[in-house]
Amino acid sequence: MDRHDRVAVAAERGALVDAVLERFFSLSKKRATPLGAPYEHLWGLLERNTQGGKRFRPRMVMAAYAGLGGDDMDAAAYIGASFELLHTALIVHDDVIDRDFVRRGIPNISGAYRDHAVDRGASVEIAEHRGVSAAVIAGDLALFNSYRLIDKSGVTGEMRDRLLDILDEAMFASAAGELIDVDLSMASTTPLVDDILTMERLKTAVYSFETPLQAGAVLAGAGEETVATLGEFGREIGIAYQIVDDVLGVFGEEESTGKTTIGDLREGKRTVMIAFACSTPEWVRLRELIGDPDLTHEQAIETRLLLIQSGAKAFAEDLARGYAQRALARLAEPHIPASLREELHPVAETVLNRVR
Amino acid sequence: MDRHDRVAVAAERGALVDAVLERFFSLSKKRATPLGAPYEHLWGLLERNTQGGKRFRPRMVMAAYAGLGGDDMDAAAYIGASFELLHTALIVHDDVIDRDFVRRGIPNISGAYRDHAVDRGASVEIAEHRGVSAAVIAGDLALFNSYRLIDKSGVTGEMRDRLLDILDEAMFASAAGELIDVDLSMASTTPLVDDILTMERLKTAVYSFETPLQAGAVLAGAGEETVATLGEFGREIGIAYQIVDDVLGVFGEEESTGKTTIGDLREGKRTVMIAFACSTPEWVRLRELIGDPDLTHEQAIETRLLLIQSGAKAFAEDLARGYAQRALARLAEPHIPASLREELHPVAETVLNRVR
Repeated sequence: MDRHDRVAVAAERGALVDAVLERFFSLSKKRATPLGAPYEHLWGLLERNTQGGKRFRPRMVMAAYAGLGGDDMDAAAYIGASFELLHTALIVHDDVIDRDFVRRGIPNISGAYRDHAVDRGASVEIAEHRGVSAAVIAGDLALFNSYRLIDKSGVTGEMRDRLLDILDEAMFASAAGELIDVDLSMASTTPLVDDILTMERLKTAVYSFETPLQAGAVLAGAGEETVATLGEFGREIGIAYQIVDDVLGVFGEEESTGKTTIGDLREGKRTVMIAFACSTPEWVRLRELIGDPDLTHEQAIETRLLLIQSGAKAFAEDLARGYAQRALARLAEPHIPASLREELHPVAETVLNRVR
Repeated sequence: MDRHDRVAVAAERGALVDAVLERFFSLSKKRATPLGAPYEHLWGLLERNTQGGKRFRPRMVMAAYAGLGGDDMDAAAYIGASFELLHTALIVHDDVIDRDFVRRGIPNISGAYRDHAVDRGASVEIAEHRGVSAAVIAGDLALFNSYRLIDKSGVTGEMRDRLLDILDEAMFASAAGELIDVDLSMASTTPLVDDILTMERLKTAVYSFETPLQAGAVLAGAGEETVATLGEFGREIGIAYQIVDDVLGVFGEEESTGKTTIGDLREGKRTVMIAFACSTPEWVRLRELIGDPDLTHEQAIETRLLLIQSGAKAFAEDLARGYAQRALARLAEPHIPASLREELHPVAETVLNRVR
């Protein structure tokens, strides 16, 4: 399959997931109507929050499923949509925790409510409170229904139970990762590289890579060995992805990543680069810069330079490459069919290309 | 069954629910251990938050189940525990929304974390943020696992699907009710009696009475007509219960209700009494008192007197009696077996006794 074909296949699969989510939200909004216009509106906002994404987790489910010979793409789309709703729930509540009102430059649920309340004359404090409250509720609905979509997928019996176990594992790990993240962000000491890696794996990689891949494999009826290998591939590539994401959060181009490259620095986001840098001489100056909410663009350039000079950027990139290469090695194992390798190789390549 | 027997039966059923929750939390804590001591600690705090309650929702499940001839009390205890976890999730997130750190005089999850962080030298602002963050995560875990407990109950096939539909209905209604509550508490105008009743039904009565009773009936294999009647009984008695609860929140004795009788007044809690009072001459003075966070005990007495003089208290009590009597009428319907009537009559009587 060449690049052109891959893009077409991805679009086709994405459309199937979109259709599942569209049906789900259409039903939910209809059901919400008699309970009041604000409730219907909340469902609409939640729906909007699931749109425009890369459908990354569903793509992992479907790649594993198709690569292992699965041919009921509608069922795979249901399972994928379930992970997408879990993702929505986690980011909506992550924004509640961080008291963020904007995500990727667009008002999130809290932000939309806040802005609406301010327009109607509420004070900022009351408007923000209303926004956060609505986001707590919306995240709960997304979380509950991520489980529900698996139950509604048409999959039954032992396979359903296994898929639910996998989704449970995703949720269990993410909650642990979120808690570690909260603790790290409030700790007065700088974190260790291993703490960052554990946090990023639990908070994001498990539910974004490991478990969606495993769910796709289970749905395709794969054996334990294959499911386990896919989990390991997902773990390695998921960690690599997070490390690269952090590097691009500081050094990437805003246009391609959709993120500002100053936000993470101002916020003092704990990353592998920071954990490495704090044992280098450059830390004396870096500690004054990182986490300064008023960091200027000039100071941001100085920070980036110091992260390069300290070796922190190269360290993170090497680390990511190591993880990505170990991921590729998993795919080379003899029990992985060529069709699956063909599906997943590009995933690992994409990560590697980002640090090339 | 006399009163003494009923107490013994309630204790026995409560013990079965406790055992389900104990097993669930014991497994979860063991599973959390490798993910870090703070995560295990969070699970322990969540467990503590499910303890000491009246196991009200499980009792509804089990009353309906036993009254309809069900004899697998362990399965009923699982379904009951599921509603108990849903209850925990909803109150934990309700406290996040209200930024409450105490519930019934004891620090809740946010409060426990805040106090712990303050003890270790964190600022109050940071400590509160950490507390609220932990509560968001803990509520998510409780919510997700309320669904999960039904899946783990041993009930399969169509019956499992129907129980999941009922739990979904409970969650769907509660979220709508919570949103209406947030909107009402921020509205500048006084609410209508009907708005309060709708909010209280959706936010609390559906998941505390209507759906647990229906779940017990479904588990007992009851027919549609009985399930529907139980839902109506639950709706009527649930609304009656909420109205009485609001009256007792202002006029009750703290020892028997476990709540202060000044908190609701200081907070300006929207109740049927308030909605009624605002169309009476006493409102001119009442509006100055209600919602004043610094309300003195003397002013609280004045407020209570005005609520009596305006007729608001009597209005609410009459309203509650009407709902409770309609609930009792449902039980008198011919397709309700005597054994079920015997189980549920005391529930309605208890509500009626509280306004006698």
